[in-house]
Amino acid sequence: MRIGELSRRSGVSVATIKFYVREGLLPPGELTSPNQASYDSGHERRLKLIRALLDVGGLSLSAIGDVLRAIDDPAQPVHTVLGVAAKRITALEGSEPGPELDDAREEVAELLERRGWRVEARSPAGEALAGVLAALRRAGHGGFCELLDDYASAAEPVARADLDYVGRRVAREDLVESVVVGTVLGEAMFSALRRLAHVDASARAYGGEQGERVGGG
Amino acid sequence: MRIGELSRRSGVSVATIKFYVREGLLPPGELTSPNQASYDSGHERRLKLIRALLDVGGLSLSAIGDVLRAIDDPAQPVHTVLGVAAKRITALEGSEPGPELDDAREEVAELLERRGWRVEARSPAGEALAGVLAALRRAGHGGFCELLDDYASAAEPVARADLDYVGRRVAREDLVESVVVGTVLGEAMFSALRRLAHVDASARAYGGEQGERVGGG
Repeated sequence: MRIGELSRRSGVSVATIKFYVREGLLPPGELTSPNQASYDSGHERRLKLIRALLDVGGLSLSAIGDVLRAIDDPAQPVHTVLGVAAKRITALEGSEPGPELDDAREEVAELLERRGWRVEARSPAGEALAGVLAALRRAGHGGFCELLDDYASAAEPVARADLDYVGRRVAREDLVESVVVGTVLGEAMFSALRRLAHVDASARAYGGEQGERVGGG
Repeated sequence: MRIGELSRRSGVSVATIKFYVREGLLPPGELTSPNQASYDSGHERRLKLIRALLDVGGLSLSAIGDVLRAIDDPAQPVHTVLGVAAKRITALEGSEPGPELDDAREEVAELLERRGWRVEARSPAGEALAGVLAALRRAGHGGFCELLDDYASAAEPVARADLDYVGRRVAREDLVESVVVGTVLGEAMFSALRRLAHVDASARAYGGEQGERVGGG
């Protein structure tokens, strides 16, 4: 298909498609004449993936570029691609060092031990968690860290469901794309559900007629 | 204290503190001479809150400004402040209209009905969830929506734990600040835990020696 058709089907403007090609996020179309290129359903799918990561996942174009390059490189084993994705998806740029961070790292190591999770405390996700705990303490809300095990108990079945879903995928590109999409959009999904559940829990705790529905949240 | 001391205690540079005052994020210090102002522990606490929302929560300065103005206005009832916070924290700017979004809204309404959650489907969180479901479909990963109830089951106890935590706060400023911090940083906390649990689930499913810990994630 021509670029105009690709734009119509993907909802992405022609100028933006050209920009993504220049930035290496989208492979160029096949040249059918010096001024015309032809695009296929692979381009359409890739464009939709970029938009989802950008609009809903809130990833930067540079993070998306890194993730897509890892997906596209057949020499990279799946777990390396997931590592790249995990690193780029993790928003924390690196936490401020200090006593709060040291304490938080200790707390993460204890949590992993307590729950028997087979993960290194100094892995990217472990460091991200330590960064959050340190930020809570610095903001004067260290008490919120009491909820760590409530959150961990909720994260376990979610992670198992994610993995079951991904396990049903066979092709490598499908598999990796599923993990990336699931990690990024699954996060947005949980976040919206948690806020909905807040409104419900608040309605139950603080009243309103039985059956009355509440806005907000 | 003087601005230099405030900078040292909060870890925020003097230039940035002045910028926050100009932008209305931080109240000005009390003038002790034409060129010198005095700051107190309220300033320090507010600075730490701004940094946490900015660095870990990934909120924009304009979103933080809206939330802080709502917190500071004693005429605003608590639920209005929470509404402002929920709206500004929700990353989605508004989803592309289309058949996917119509279907997704229907799916959200069914979910709320099925679970008996007392929330309007067209509330900000409901709209955010519909946007995520539509984005998953558009990205060709509609299958991920199968996990909706797994995620909802995990969100319920988390929301209850959040509310219990907030319920232990008494003062209005404390209460509102706790909800904002809990919503934003709690999200980052769950996200890091989910990734840790992914690595663990993956180690259990795909092997590695018993007790071997895995990086990545």
